Amino acid sequence: MDFNIIRIARVVMNVTDLNASRDFYVNALGFIETDSSSEWIALRGLEEHCHHSLLLKKAEKPGVHLVSYKVWEDSHLTALEAFFKGKGSKANWYEADDATGIGKTLRVEDPSGIPLEFFAEMKGVERCIQKYDLYRGARVQRIDHINCMVPDVEAAVSFYTKELGFRVSEYTATEDDRTWAAWLHRKPTVHDVAFMNGEGPRLHHIGFWLSDPMSLIHCCDVMASMGYADNIERGPGRHGLSNAFFLYVRDPDGNRIELYNGDYLTSDPDFKPVKWDINDPRRQTFWGHKAPDSWFNEATSFLDLEKGEPVNQKSPTLAQRKPDFVT
Amino acid sequence: MDFNIIRIARVVMNVTDLNASRDFYVNALGFIETDSSSEWIALRGLEEHCHHSLLLKKAEKPGVHLVSYKVWEDSHLTALEAFFKGKGSKANWYEADDATGIGKTLRVEDPSGIPLEFFAEMKGVERCIQKYDLYRGARVQRIDHINCMVPDVEAAVSFYTKELGFRVSEYTATEDDRTWAAWLHRKPTVHDVAFMNGEGPRLHHIGFWLSDPMSLIHCCDVMASMGYADNIERGPGRHGLSNAFFLYVRDPDGNRIELYNGDYLTSDPDFKPVKWDINDPRRQTFWGHKAPDSWFNEATSFLDLEKGEPVNQKSPTLAQRKPDFVT
Amino acid sequence: MDFNIIRIARVVMNVTDLNASRDFYVNALGFIETDSSSEWIALRGLEEHCHHSLLLKKAEKPGVHLVSYKVWEDSHLTALEAFFKGKGSKANWYEADDATGIGKTLRVEDPSGIPLEFFAEMKGVERCIQKYDLYRGARVQRIDHINCMVPDVEAAVSFYTKELGFRVSEYTATEDDRTWAAWLHRKPTVHDVAFMNGEGPRLHHIGFWLSDPMSLIHCCDVMASMGYADNIERGPGRHGLSNAFFLYVRDPDGNRIELYNGDYLTSDPDFKPVKWDINDPRRQTFWGHKAPDSWFNEATSFLDLEKGEPVNQKSPTLAQRKPDFVT
Amino acid sequence: MDFNIIRIARVVMNVTDLNASRDFYVNALGFIETDSSSEWIALRGLEEHCHHSLLLKKAEKPGVHLVSYKVWEDSHLTALEAFFKGKGSKANWYEADDATGIGKTLRVEDPSGIPLEFFAEMKGVERCIQKYDLYRGARVQRIDHINCMVPDVEAAVSFYTKELGFRVSEYTATEDDRTWAAWLHRKPTVHDVAFMNGEGPRLHHIGFWLSDPMSLIHCCDVMASMGYADNIERGPGRHGLSNAFFLYVRDPDGNRIELYNGDYLTSDPDFKPVKWDINDPRRQTFWGHKAPDSWFNEATSFLDLEKGEPVNQKSPTLAQRKPDFVT
Repeated sequence: MDFNIIRIARVVMNVTDLNASRDFYVNALGFIETDSSSEWIALRGLEEHCHHSLLLKKAEKPGVHLVSYKVWEDSHLTALEAFFKGKGSKANWYEADDATGIGKTLRVEDPSGIPLEFFAEMKGVERCIQKYDLYRGARVQRIDHINCMVPDVEAAVSFYTKELGFRVSEYTATEDDRTWAAWLHRKPTVHDVAFMNGEGPRLHHIGFWLSDPMSLIHCCDVMASMGYADNIERGPGRHGLSNAFFLYVRDPDGNRIELYNGDYLTSDPDFKPVKWDINDPRRQTFWGHKAPDSWFNEATSFLDLEKGEPVNQKSPTLAQRKPDFVT
Repeated sequence: MDFNIIRIARVVMNVTDLNASRDFYVNALGFIETDSSSEWIALRGLEEHCHHSLLLKKAEKPGVHLVSYKVWEDSHLTALEAFFKGKGSKANWYEADDATGIGKTLRVEDPSGIPLEFFAEMKGVERCIQKYDLYRGARVQRIDHINCMVPDVEAAVSFYTKELGFRVSEYTATEDDRTWAAWLHRKPTVHDVAFMNGEGPRLHHIGFWLSDPMSLIHCCDVMASMGYADNIERGPGRHGLSNAFFLYVRDPDGNRIELYNGDYLTSDPDFKPVKWDINDPRRQTFWGHKAPDSWFNEATSFLDLEKGEPVNQKSPTLAQRKPDFVT
Repeated sequence: MDFNIIRIARVVMNVTDLNASRDFYVNALGFIETDSSSEWIALRGLEEHCHHSLLLKKAEKPGVHLVSYKVWEDSHLTALEAFFKGKGSKANWYEADDATGIGKTLRVEDPSGIPLEFFAEMKGVERCIQKYDLYRGARVQRIDHINCMVPDVEAAVSFYTKELGFRVSEYTATEDDRTWAAWLHRKPTVHDVAFMNGEGPRLHHIGFWLSDPMSLIHCCDVMASMGYADNIERGPGRHGLSNAFFLYVRDPDGNRIELYNGDYLTSDPDFKPVKWDINDPRRQTFWGHKAPDSWFNEATSFLDLEKGEPVNQKSPTLAQRKPDFVT
Repeated sequence: MDFNIIRIARVVMNVTDLNASRDFYVNALGFIETDSSSEWIALRGLEEHCHHSLLLKKAEKPGVHLVSYKVWEDSHLTALEAFFKGKGSKANWYEADDATGIGKTLRVEDPSGIPLEFFAEMKGVERCIQKYDLYRGARVQRIDHINCMVPDVEAAVSFYTKELGFRVSEYTATEDDRTWAAWLHRKPTVHDVAFMNGEGPRLHHIGFWLSDPMSLIHCCDVMASMGYADNIERGPGRHGLSNAFFLYVRDPDGNRIELYNGDYLTSDPDFKPVKWDINDPRRQTFWGHKAPDSWFNEATSFLDLEKGEPVNQKSPTLAQRKPDFVT
């Protein structure tokens, strides 16, 4: 069965102060603000032709409402509904929302407890890719991936690959060959979603694509100039796994954003997933830098689809270890 | 019908001096030489996991034997055979060739007279993406696209989109709304193949992907240092169409190579093809530079599948004009 | 005799529309506007600690009032006065001008007819080098050099080296070993001033230093986005002479600005001036690109110190030829 | 009195394995090997026109023999001899050494116990700045500065500024306004030499200039590919103090090298030294990264001029604190 999932498409999450978030995402990172109200801001990257890839909602506490995949057409939504209901899961329809530009959506909970959304339509907007005079900070181009901590990585990988049609590009294995972390894709890049062994489900970070490495360096400088030096958590550096040039920053509420440039094409069925041994001396980032403890320990809770309360978290299946190559 | 064509995968073409070509492609542009004989050199980019994307054959005259697309699996080759034969075209099978690492192939001529090849298997080799000590010159990462001059662009676009499942990302239209040039993709980048109105069929250039803009600048410096300044034909510059940062160089036999970095994701069905008016004042490259006459006039002949003789060329359907935004 | 000239320090020139100039210099090129009135704008680069390096005056026609060198202290101004008067030249003092931040100045005409100014003091202002959130366009850092067309290069070089203490870093010689163009410095970079054989005196361009090569590429993109593509005259490219990465742009009045990054240290007395033969096949820029005719033919008139009328121009001593390596 | 010291010019130091050092400095960092014997290797950067800026001598233990300044001409050496002897210090002449290309030298010990050398002549060699096909790794361009830990920074600064004619560009002060560290220059960059409060005298690092920021990123990648990831100690990052983009690496013997790009012009007498408060929240590097302990604690001993034994080290005058902005 093919649900024709195209790519990760948006994240909907809470922030406590819309203006503080606007300053961070628009002025420091370079997102375009498509629209906003007193309750939310819709943000997109410079090359994006859809209304938003990040919807920030004003709330009292952080939390992630939805991670959202785009499918090819409505029939795939119907097929997904049938699939989830066939497994005994809830799968609810939501009406299109003209204000935020999103078409009708199907929302479900994945086996790790992550609130998922699927949609086929989002309002089209102007691409700003050639409006270079609007480029600021990191000049964010588009959403690239999400990374989640889940208690059972192998179960998550099995579900996404066998049921939803994702493919593995790279993974980290323990000594006894258990999958400790995995990078999965639908679009032919390294990933749309990664899962890492850990207390969860929690959203570890959202990755956004940059046009070139120097934009990442410039973003560090701009963030420092604007008083956001403390929000730079890790990097710049080169990932061993994925080969991307990366920077991790924390937004004013602690949500983690990865600025990311330069992985590779994963289009071919004979591309063999790259295995990284958890004891490989290169488990640190490619240049040998260690990540700070906060990077391993802190992540954002998911909120359940019905009440918006934090989803129950479980301890990880495998022993907790610092997954150094995790992107 | 879906033939599951993944991407442009290789070009097979003539050069007159293998050592001269090796110096140019390996030392100046930074290709990896997978293997060679007295008759050919097989080259790949740093991230490629397949045997080669460029096969240079020793011959007395330049000419392009094949442009080649990878499909998902053998069944798609069989479907392509049936399709072409159903249209009354020849479609011949060729045995796998262990020396050059190519699996069995199906070869046909497209409606413009371009010799096409389809295959599902090529020998796997080591990816060198993280062997940075081997990086030289432009540090070519992978094949990205080909660009062909054809006498009837609209016929070519119709065939590739309606029959082979390609999609249009951008195009140039005349005053009376005829398609003068078009960029078509299977993988979700701007293109796997572009067609431009002109005497043809001829191969205008092969585009290779670079990891970042500074590698392109460095390649100019390296080429000049090595005595290849005259081989730099156009650029560096920014394409209006595609938004890529580009450089056109000519190999020792005059074959044109585009070094290319930075287009955008075209994965979505609701991405609207970008139309460029042939009278748009921005018809020049985005920064307003003019291309030299050689760029408009010179291209490499295709060779027919049976005798290896130059394919018959026809005059273009639309009046010849300098297509400034052509990538 | 040592007048202790430190460096080229500012240029004072006319523009016809202050707002048009502001948009170009501040928004597209990234200058900081220190101050302005209805009659002038004072501009500085991001690292400059002095009031301005470019003073634009509103006028009906273009023209350059002054090119200005900073000396170590007042005693050197007095020594310069004595020197010029001793040669029978006029040398007039001007009072400090609090509005534009300039201290007292000594103004003279050099042997080519160029209006020169010397000063020791200019009002200090905040350096913005670490205010990265203000960086725009080319992110101009500081004034680097001026380049003038003069009718007798050898006479100019002789005066600046023997009398004023400049040193030659590179030069272009004709077949009969006449100096066709020369690059002269006081600060230990390739130049503070260059002279090229031509109808003159005229100001060919003012060169400003950038922090890195990618800022130059970004400036091309920003200029094109803002509608300034036609103002990009030449480049980006690598100079053979000086080795700098360069871009030539024209301001709204046609004044030529060079954006420049990456020459080398010329501090040592045993550094041998680099000689370029006018027939050297590498006379084109290092990558082999030709400059457009406008680059060779167009330049801005100097205005005389007393009446502000265009300085008389003379035909060049040596035959006019395209000086391809000229920076 | 003006001794006309031009710039820091070379360092002579021990390494234990010439081949291991050659691999590191030439293949990973991109130095040019001018010449070598069984006892030494002479290295220079790509733009250097003198024989070497780093002379590595084979020995059983690390140690720094000399830090060396170039003066304008021989008369300045004689003046320096008279100056040092007048202060009751030893000042010995050494003959020119044709093998290593150094002219006659005057060697003295500075007030901190650092073995200093002055010279006016070194053999000229070919500059490789435009031999881009030789560029590797970090593409080191030239020596930029040295940084020394000394027990009494204020005494060192006083001697270098009042007696030798250096000027301060930036400095770090304690709460009670004692100078904790200082950056001093002769050439108009941020520094030729820096002094930091610490057990000493010891050589903290030698700084080499790079042509652009991306060469530094590429060097990290090349080092990691070659197995030198453990030799990357700190960075890449932006210095608050100096504004340079930096990377600290350790050679196979633990000697620290800084790869450095992008400070600013310090030519003007009215440039006011930048003061950094030791309690400034920005005392960390500009992006807020902490340096590892090794960076604060480890440095290389100097060797005395006569016996080549380690120079006696003293405890610092001011309390030891982590000097975060030290470059």
